[in-house]
Amino acid sequence: MKKFINNVDTLLEESLSGFAKAHADIVHYNTQPHFVRRIQTARAGKVALISGGGSGHEPLHTGFVGEGMLDAACPGQIFTSPTPDQMLAAAQAVENGGGILFIVKNYAGDVMNFEIAAEMLECPNASVRVADDVSLPKNHSTGRRGVAGTLLVEKIVGAAAEVGADLAACQALGERVNEATASIGVALTSCTVPALGKPTFDLAGNEMEMGVGIHGERGLETLPLAAATEIVEHLAQAIDNELAPEKNQPVLLHVNGFGATPLLELHLIYGLAARFWEKRGVKICRSLVGNYTTSLDMAGCSITLTRLDDELIRFWDAPVHTAALRWGC
Amino acid sequence: MKKFINNVDTLLEESLSGFAKAHADIVHYNTQPHFVRRIQTARAGKVALISGGGSGHEPLHTGFVGEGMLDAACPGQIFTSPTPDQMLAAAQAVENGGGILFIVKNYAGDVMNFEIAAEMLECPNASVRVADDVSLPKNHSTGRRGVAGTLLVEKIVGAAAEVGADLAACQALGERVNEATASIGVALTSCTVPALGKPTFDLAGNEMEMGVGIHGERGLETLPLAAATEIVEHLAQAIDNELAPEKNQPVLLHVNGFGATPLLELHLIYGLAARFWEKRGVKICRSLVGNYTTSLDMAGCSITLTRLDDELIRFWDAPVHTAALRWGC
Repeated sequence: MKKFINNVDTLLEESLSGFAKAHADIVHYNTQPHFVRRIQTARAGKVALISGGGSGHEPLHTGFVGEGMLDAACPGQIFTSPTPDQMLAAAQAVENGGGILFIVKNYAGDVMNFEIAAEMLECPNASVRVADDVSLPKNHSTGRRGVAGTLLVEKIVGAAAEVGADLAACQALGERVNEATASIGVALTSCTVPALGKPTFDLAGNEMEMGVGIHGERGLETLPLAAATEIVEHLAQAIDNELAPEKNQPVLLHVNGFGATPLLELHLIYGLAARFWEKRGVKICRSLVGNYTTSLDMAGCSITLTRLDDELIRFWDAPVHTAALRWGC
Repeated sequence: MKKFINNVDTLLEESLSGFAKAHADIVHYNTQPHFVRRIQTARAGKVALISGGGSGHEPLHTGFVGEGMLDAACPGQIFTSPTPDQMLAAAQAVENGGGILFIVKNYAGDVMNFEIAAEMLECPNASVRVADDVSLPKNHSTGRRGVAGTLLVEKIVGAAAEVGADLAACQALGERVNEATASIGVALTSCTVPALGKPTFDLAGNEMEMGVGIHGERGLETLPLAAATEIVEHLAQAIDNELAPEKNQPVLLHVNGFGATPLLELHLIYGLAARFWEKRGVKICRSLVGNYTTSLDMAGCSITLTRLDDELIRFWDAPVHTAALRWGC
């Protein structure tokens, strides 16, 4: 295993400490228990947004803490759910009179721990569960996984909370964004979890894993490596089947890298995906390309599409000042 | 070779086309010859900044085109210098009455082609050569290479040009930033150039390449893989020997990923590097962590330090609106 680390046991804390130091104007890092909260004071009565999940997906979620997005993020160990005490401590630190909205990716451990925290929390609170991965069927036993679409929920609800939407409105908006969003990914290599020290799964030199999860979960099928156009058709068709955007439907197209795929390739994928929907008359009016929801050092990418309307566009465009997304501030 | 491509021959054009589509509010992509220019109209009389170099280092330079930074970028084929006709066409497109400043990384092909373009250009022009890689001695036969410090020159001179600095002032400022900047990198793996189809060099599972270049040039020494703290001490000491920042010297600390190293590790490296200079009383007052000057899919990183003063801090903080760096606009 070739990584820049000192010790598997201290990796997360050392990394979070470096992150907080590099972005000391935006975030504060609390160590016991671990959470990252925004520094800029929120308006009194603002709904406080908290997300979290296993680490290894950076910049998700810590990189999205700041004005216009999350109030706090609770990082678990790598690919491991954060614990309820982290969520409770974060909630106590950022609760500001408007209640707490938990934004939770749909994984059993995350869901359970955020539910425990919600039950113990004494202030008004609600949750949004993100489940945008269409590689699994809608009626899958534990539901679909939350992947790169989580960023969209966090950005859009973050903007609404900033301008005064109440807890119920934030929750409803988050659910609306989740419903309007579909993602699917493909891996060219496995990631290597530091504590394991070797790739999570093996892929031959001429294979790719279609419908892969962001924790190195194997996908629905292992296919022979194909040309980029064919790969994009496969991914985009799965999303299109689900969201069925009509002609002139405004959408946001997000191409997300899993960590080890160069921007050169991500932009090529973006161009092909844009052409797929442009051919169908869909109106791509917002875009995001880069490594936002990663899977450590996995080579691969995902495509996310969100159906937009005027309200969602306004919230997407609203000012945001975080380590990983910044505009208008 | 596992990459998202259709064809090695069309990879660059497909990628640039996707890049320009994703950032159509910031850049325009000209195809014959290839260059990317900013869309936002520059003030009449503004010095126009043009950079360029081989592709494969994205977001450098195309991702730095826009308000407050570059007026145009000329991408060559992967790891191959752009040609004078690209530079001339870009210059004609963005010249705005203030002359042209070429920002050139110090590689023989880039230097030669930018010199040819400068000679053919009929408007006033000047050049800044960036040579921040301290892994080579100062008296190296072809001079030191330009690496991640190039971003600093482009950002700071871009801000000065935006507020009216003339051609001579921009050139002098660029040279001053170059003198105040030192970088050095380490690779854990080689990159794979698409046209070659296999890694440029081989490293054993327990080796790292210290002082590596951004084109997969082998470094000064192949060393056994060490703990992160030891690696950072090695890199930071080489920079410190060169720049010799005194106590209370304000600096910018930039940790740059080569493409396949996760943010989790880059932030850990940042924390260790910050501690190195904080211990010496150096004042880290600006930071940048992420994949900015990459080497395709190489795992590795570089550290860059720039001695700052009030003027450089003001220009660093000035508004910038590009695909890869954005604040204040």
